[in-house]
Amino acid sequence: MKISDIGEFGLIDRIGRTASRNAKGAPIGIGDDAAALVLSPSSTLLATTDMLIEGVHFDLETTDLRSLGWKAAAVNLSDIAAMGGVPRFCLTALGIPPSLSVEDISEFYRGVNACLRKFGTVLVGGDTCASKQGFVITVTVLGEAARKKIVTRSGARPGDMIFVTGSLGDSAAGLELLSSGSGVRGQGSGKTRNSGTRRLIEKHLRPVPRVNEGGKLSAAGIASAMIDVSDGLSSDLGHLCRLGGVGAEVFARRIPLSKELRSAKGLKKTPVEYALSGGEDYELLFTVPPGRIKKLKALPLVATEIGVITIDRSMRLIDELGQGSPLRAAGYDHFRSGRRRGPVR
Amino acid sequence: MKISDIGEFGLIDRIGRTASRNAKGAPIGIGDDAAALVLSPSSTLLATTDMLIEGVHFDLETTDLRSLGWKAAAVNLSDIAAMGGVPRFCLTALGIPPSLSVEDISEFYRGVNACLRKFGTVLVGGDTCASKQGFVITVTVLGEAARKKIVTRSGARPGDMIFVTGSLGDSAAGLELLSSGSGVRGQGSGKTRNSGTRRLIEKHLRPVPRVNEGGKLSAAGIASAMIDVSDGLSSDLGHLCRLGGVGAEVFARRIPLSKELRSAKGLKKTPVEYALSGGEDYELLFTVPPGRIKKLKALPLVATEIGVITIDRSMRLIDELGQGSPLRAAGYDHFRSGRRRGPVR
Repeated sequence: MKISDIGEFGLIDRIGRTASRNAKGAPIGIGDDAAALVLSPSSTLLATTDMLIEGVHFDLETTDLRSLGWKAAAVNLSDIAAMGGVPRFCLTALGIPPSLSVEDISEFYRGVNACLRKFGTVLVGGDTCASKQGFVITVTVLGEAARKKIVTRSGARPGDMIFVTGSLGDSAAGLELLSSGSGVRGQGSGKTRNSGTRRLIEKHLRPVPRVNEGGKLSAAGIASAMIDVSDGLSSDLGHLCRLGGVGAEVFARRIPLSKELRSAKGLKKTPVEYALSGGEDYELLFTVPPGRIKKLKALPLVATEIGVITIDRSMRLIDELGQGSPLRAAGYDHFRSGRRRGPVR
Repeated sequence: MKISDIGEFGLIDRIGRTASRNAKGAPIGIGDDAAALVLSPSSTLLATTDMLIEGVHFDLETTDLRSLGWKAAAVNLSDIAAMGGVPRFCLTALGIPPSLSVEDISEFYRGVNACLRKFGTVLVGGDTCASKQGFVITVTVLGEAARKKIVTRSGARPGDMIFVTGSLGDSAAGLELLSSGSGVRGQGSGKTRNSGTRRLIEKHLRPVPRVNEGGKLSAAGIASAMIDVSDGLSSDLGHLCRLGGVGAEVFARRIPLSKELRSAKGLKKTPVEYALSGGEDYELLFTVPPGRIKKLKALPLVATEIGVITIDRSMRLIDELGQGSPLRAAGYDHFRSGRRRGPVR
């Protein structure tokens, strides 16, 4: 069905029906001038927004619309997780090109809502408009945290240990395999791919934001600084170092790599290279003062110690022989490089 | 200066410097994973987001970047005003094409911040990325209101009087004059235009959101329903009627028209037509039960009574002879019509 058949308000009604009715904390529902939202008393509001543009952040050849919706929500939930907060509410603003149908937009929102529901978050409002050139998506997520439990990027101190959840590099490797295999609908798609390849691609298309892990770290008061790995380990660790006024040593062989990444065939780079500069993993990178390591080990949480914060402001990568080399932030810069990422960064 | 000279993080640093430092309620400042914001205890959070796309909502031939920034903020502040809320915080997500320079983006933020400052609102975060096709802007504004003071679109009841602040139609007429006069930098621009034309254009380029008026109406508990006039009187009154399950009679000669609109030369439509379907006025349209009219008259607030809410669900326009004709919502639909508005709707 063409969107022009139902018009702007018909489309908004449909989107509204996909969202939870009478959601807790959203008393007036979708469709007014603004969403009205109730937070827990005394909590601090967390707010994050991300814009995704077709041809820049994603390509409809290498993602399906449901995965795109999931990922658009996930990358914002990940930002709330990286503050140690609980995501609560979501607003979406879409610029929709003529090439997308009502069903396409419904598929997109199935993905958005699946991700939101998994993490107790509700769609409460937004905006839809026509786009002439491509699909443009802005997702805003609002969350909350107790003021003293918020974990910023700037708290790392010399001697703190550096940890990361999950494994790194899978997403970038997944994108490469997806692109070289003729995309989501191409010949190399679906069941003809082996399970390891499919898992790397899945990690790229539908990353799982570490909301639960961020919440545990925040509640237990363990992390001194935290960020989500969206641009690659080197770039995001660079942010922690810059904002904390510190440096870091990272032990290359401790960087967590999945068995799927280590055994993947046909990749152009080494697994560690994807981990350092690939990005889009949406794992949590955090620092822990030595006195809190015992508390961390007691948590039900999978995280790997990969290095240590130093007083010297540079970042160094330590190889298996103990030799150090400068580690430079090699993540994506939207304006400096000609590189393009997809489906979403 | 090219944005590629300073890169994504250089640009974010510059934007951050234009925002207020240590803003009240925003303890950690710009540059973390999410903004952390403190609301008044017991208030309800209001959230609204709008996407503006170059070539759809605005045209850089008919606006300058500072006005565009002002308007991008204003249209969102207007949504908070229409709920009777107090705007507090703003997030911006920009997709920036290669054609815009660092100075252009600085100009845009001068406009954003000028509008935000005027209404006690602070820029607290956002996102910047590259766009290949045109300038894309998503502004999110967060505000607050006491739960019982929020004015929704759905509360109009038969017998309520219909009021509107300010005057209607100026913005659409201003756009037409702007477009026919070769745009903001064209030959017909600046001081060669007469003061009436300049005032209509100004109303189009830099609308003043009715934050103060919305706050007064909400605090005094006067309005039963409220919306801002973004799509034209007929369309926005249509929303109030549809959501309230009511109809309306509007008296054509009571619709407030500015002397500049009434005396403007060279327009293609009548002043009332601009008021009914022009849009982008960002005045407040609200309904008041008869028992509260006295309280309204006591307020220091300029508003004109234009009609009455009826039990019959249709909308009618009553002419000078008392003859009624159907009033159909004639506002902009992004997906149904081929019409284009600018600079912003």
